[in-house]
Amino acid sequence: MPAYSTNMRLKFPIVALALEIITIILFAVFAVYDDGKSDGHGEHSNKTDHEKKPMDLYPMFQDVHVMIFIGFGFLMTFLKRYGFSSVGINLLLAAFGLQWGLLMQGIWHMDHGKIKVNIFKIINADFSTATVLISFGAVLGKTSPVQLLIMTILEITIFSINEHLVASILKANDVGASMIIHAYGAYFGLAVARVLYRPGLRNGHENDGSVYHSDMFAMIGTVFLWMFWPSFNSAIADPGYTQLTAVINTYLSLAACVLSAYAISSLVEHKGKLDMVHIQNATLAGGVAVGTCADMNIEPFGAMLIGLLAGVISTLGFKYLTPMLASNLGIQDTCGVHNLHGMPGILGGLAGQCYHVLLVATASMQAAALASSIGFALVGGAITGLIMKLPIWGQPPDQNCFDDSIYWEVPQEEEENEGSLVHADHSKNKAEA
Amino acid sequence: MPAYSTNMRLKFPIVALALEIITIILFAVFAVYDDGKSDGHGEHSNKTDHEKKPMDLYPMFQDVHVMIFIGFGFLMTFLKRYGFSSVGINLLLAAFGLQWGLLMQGIWHMDHGKIKVNIFKIINADFSTATVLISFGAVLGKTSPVQLLIMTILEITIFSINEHLVASILKANDVGASMIIHAYGAYFGLAVARVLYRPGLRNGHENDGSVYHSDMFAMIGTVFLWMFWPSFNSAIADPGYTQLTAVINTYLSLAACVLSAYAISSLVEHKGKLDMVHIQNATLAGGVAVGTCADMNIEPFGAMLIGLLAGVISTLGFKYLTPMLASNLGIQDTCGVHNLHGMPGILGGLAGQCYHVLLVATASMQAAALASSIGFALVGGAITGLIMKLPIWGQPPDQNCFDDSIYWEVPQEEEENEGSLVHADHSKNKAEA
Amino acid sequence: MPAYSTNMRLKFPIVALALEIITIILFAVFAVYDDGKSDGHGEHSNKTDHEKKPMDLYPMFQDVHVMIFIGFGFLMTFLKRYGFSSVGINLLLAAFGLQWGLLMQGIWHMDHGKIKVNIFKIINADFSTATVLISFGAVLGKTSPVQLLIMTILEITIFSINEHLVASILKANDVGASMIIHAYGAYFGLAVARVLYRPGLRNGHENDGSVYHSDMFAMIGTVFLWMFWPSFNSAIADPGYTQLTAVINTYLSLAACVLSAYAISSLVEHKGKLDMVHIQNATLAGGVAVGTCADMNIEPFGAMLIGLLAGVISTLGFKYLTPMLASNLGIQDTCGVHNLHGMPGILGGLAGQCYHVLLVATASMQAAALASSIGFALVGGAITGLIMKLPIWGQPPDQNCFDDSIYWEVPQEEEENEGSLVHADHSKNKAEA
Repeated sequence: MPAYSTNMRLKFPIVALALEIITIILFAVFAVYDDGKSDGHGEHSNKTDHEKKPMDLYPMFQDVHVMIFIGFGFLMTFLKRYGFSSVGINLLLAAFGLQWGLLMQGIWHMDHGKIKVNIFKIINADFSTATVLISFGAVLGKTSPVQLLIMTILEITIFSINEHLVASILKANDVGASMIIHAYGAYFGLAVARVLYRPGLRNGHENDGSVYHSDMFAMIGTVFLWMFWPSFNSAIADPGYTQLTAVINTYLSLAACVLSAYAISSLVEHKGKLDMVHIQNATLAGGVAVGTCADMNIEPFGAMLIGLLAGVISTLGFKYLTPMLASNLGIQDTCGVHNLHGMPGILGGLAGQCYHVLLVATASMQAAALASSIGFALVGGAITGLIMKLPIWGQPPDQNCFDDSIYWEVPQEEEENEGSLVHADHSKNKAEA
Repeated sequence: MPAYSTNMRLKFPIVALALEIITIILFAVFAVYDDGKSDGHGEHSNKTDHEKKPMDLYPMFQDVHVMIFIGFGFLMTFLKRYGFSSVGINLLLAAFGLQWGLLMQGIWHMDHGKIKVNIFKIINADFSTATVLISFGAVLGKTSPVQLLIMTILEITIFSINEHLVASILKANDVGASMIIHAYGAYFGLAVARVLYRPGLRNGHENDGSVYHSDMFAMIGTVFLWMFWPSFNSAIADPGYTQLTAVINTYLSLAACVLSAYAISSLVEHKGKLDMVHIQNATLAGGVAVGTCADMNIEPFGAMLIGLLAGVISTLGFKYLTPMLASNLGIQDTCGVHNLHGMPGILGGLAGQCYHVLLVATASMQAAALASSIGFALVGGAITGLIMKLPIWGQPPDQNCFDDSIYWEVPQEEEENEGSLVHADHSKNKAEA
Repeated sequence: MPAYSTNMRLKFPIVALALEIITIILFAVFAVYDDGKSDGHGEHSNKTDHEKKPMDLYPMFQDVHVMIFIGFGFLMTFLKRYGFSSVGINLLLAAFGLQWGLLMQGIWHMDHGKIKVNIFKIINADFSTATVLISFGAVLGKTSPVQLLIMTILEITIFSINEHLVASILKANDVGASMIIHAYGAYFGLAVARVLYRPGLRNGHENDGSVYHSDMFAMIGTVFLWMFWPSFNSAIADPGYTQLTAVINTYLSLAACVLSAYAISSLVEHKGKLDMVHIQNATLAGGVAVGTCADMNIEPFGAMLIGLLAGVISTLGFKYLTPMLASNLGIQDTCGVHNLHGMPGILGGLAGQCYHVLLVATASMQAAALASSIGFALVGGAITGLIMKLPIWGQPPDQNCFDDSIYWEVPQEEEENEGSLVHADHSKNKAEA
């Protein structure tokens, strides 16, 4: 791919504005405010409560909002020269994705032909963007903004189909979305990454790594995700004690997960040192893995066991599995989403099945939900990847991967320093500034 | 101005302590806790609700609080050597401003000669500081802490007069404060900046720019402002569905604004690259512009159109208008507040008028509110600028503008590196450390 | 101490996993979800309210959660090469501490032999970790993760005894925990630091200082602590107007404290410049000092006077007392917790006594609570320090103090730059990357 093909000057503005204008037209046709006068079917069981007090869920919504925009955005800033893209493209994709998600999820729950927008629906819209942001992690540094907007449309559209199937047809439980968001988003992203495989990056890339301060920025994302995960897993739970259960299970699972992630990181690393990649990611696996079970009566220690196990699996995945996926299967998973969202998401789905089995209830719908999520993810991701592979979206050449300066104006001084031109003529900068 | 005049040793402590002690005396005379036993007049319509549940608005308050202290504070850290001042002086001005605002706004709503402090009032106190923080952006890097404390007193005092005029006399609607906070704060700051015009900075300043990591810090501010703006625009709306409407309109306007800001940034920049200045600021213009209309029934797509337009205007303003204001009118607007708060604020005011016209209602009070806000801003800002121009406040000489080290103890090592002394004797640092 | 002793490879994973597994077993035996069907004794007066609406306190909990993980975590990132440990070990200790705190505090409030976990209890669990994080600040940079895990267990266990004594036996008031958390945590940490005195650090250490960007990261912690402190001091207050009083007193005390901290910082520093250490810490002293009185009717101006005084004491402490403690008493207090938590905590305790005296009520229980908190802290801290001093926990040798690279994998490039190898062979990095 020649370098000029990354010029976004017309491609990106046209695609972005066209998508936004189409979206606004669809909103003009379909979206109205929720006025509390619903016809009473087609939505979740806790609808009545929300209608009476339309702002009750608002603090939960804001916690989820922080996870989407600060959490995911900063978690990906660990790369030394890709921070603008991580937090900036995260904002772009999520801002478009929540509008698209509101439409795609809304069409399954119309009321007199209208999508009635309320807090419950915008929480779900934020959720739908999480799938895209997870997949974004798998292809981070190797895709253009236009490619990613296309991925956003396709991934959220397919997500809403799978979600409807799982929640309304199979009637499976997945309150914290281990399966329908985390496993789905991870395997979708991995399928895309596989299709977009770059042999030229087989031996790594000098910018595919962190510097000290970029790791610190990433910890902002990690900690906000960690803190607000109880809100993610409980936001759409039934109000009252069920919601409390979801909060407590997630709180405890995450706490236990921290201990196992730290322990395993130290165990597998050189001289027992901790690895920031593990700390930034595997400490969150407990939130993913307890998602499906979060509102179930698994007891506090059950939640902690899930978290403990998730931390172990996730850390080991980063250490041993990610390199293997890259070298053996051609899946170059930049952020290791398979370890944070993929395997813990499956663990969450399996834990939900175990719980149903223990209750001597049928676990088949839960199993079907997991299979459906992964199936949609792999097929949908592969097709999406093929579309993204068309050589017209301004994707970066190998040598410019993981580098903000291909899509962003980057301050000159920094570019020189980080480019290791230590003896650069700094007076030039000053003259330009 | 000779360099010694920036010595703050006595000026600043005396001014700061004197202001605080006077404020405490005024609080001792006038301020009491709200005990819910109000005499029932002189406050907003939703008073009864707040009295019954005094903590209902607290989560909203905290969101606004985060916008004021993290949002505004970090948004201004984009300058390479002015981060301490941005976040530190922001804290100082807002901490003093909220006390002063509580008094100035409170005197219009006394109850038996007392200001009854409650959550509603402290949200408004936080709001009043936003005007100062917007103006701070216009003069960032070119003013001393003492000058800025003086600006805080005057700007909030005048703000509270205009707010009373607009809300209680004109009875105009401005729930999200497009006019009375954003347009007012911007034009006040621009008037101050005009009076404080520095010909010596006509050709720029080497420190009036960002480095890679300072742009990352600024994104923390941007994203927190972006996320919590629905709280800003809905915090003092009527409870229930009106508040929900304000949340949804702001949420959607901001989302649409992101797409247009990104698109226009790419369109006007070299090779279609994105410019961090636009992303950090213009993505927020949708929140400003939908402010006046936020609680009105403009329909979701109406909010999105306002956001779309605001993103376009704001980005174009940064690209083309800010340089013209500086070169032609002598207005050196460091953060470009005219583009983020000024023009989008006017757009918001005009949108509010359009909505009233469409309802075949009179738009004249809305128009008067906008005119009043800008009039008070320009006259008040000019007078404030003249007072700030007195050569006794320790303002920095031109060559020390945009540099923390004139008012802060700055770590030695960093000072050297950033000053591009690449071959510096590092052993000196160690000896000193 | 020879260098190899810092190898954590087996020590740390074994200790961490063993502690977590023991904790899970204890949870399996004792912890259940709160189902609202309590036997009605043994808990705080506001229990009935919480049972009816189990999620009412959740937004308060999340604010406290942010203070613990972002606030404390980033506040300590000011050290130039110790950011990974500050935010990372903070996460580890708090994640383990909240589990241990839930058990230790829970055993005093059992219901049919079970600890019923609810939002009120997890807020208190978060609180219990604050004591550890304060003490962590006193020994920051000079201890191993294993030592700190041991400190966590002992400090929280002793804390829960003192808390039970103060709250249930003495029936003293300390809603914002000036005494039982802040003074206790500070003096516990100082006692530990005294026992772990390192003569080799008498003349400082090259890494015991900040760089420009590390000071910026620390401000993230400062500002989040500052903003959410009203939640810390009011979270477990009686609902309604009492809680409102706690919010307003804390809000105003903190605002006044900012002015005095800035004023005194400028007064005592070279040329009137502001010192980041003071701004990062002393601006928070108002939150600590108003803690005990937060829910008392001290009037708004009373809260502001407490804040004003706390800012003065704290800043002076950083400037004059901390160096004296180090040189004369052998207490090397890395973060100056004596100035932020110790003295303001005592001030808070004394303010509470004054208030009781003014009411012609007995202040003796308040005095006993303060004495108990400090007594338990000093004795408990000394014993804990002796245990931590055993040469088996992998503590760092003097020359490796304040350096992440002893317990963390640190990106190579940065290590070189910060280590001032300006002319380093950068091609080596690239080959490795």
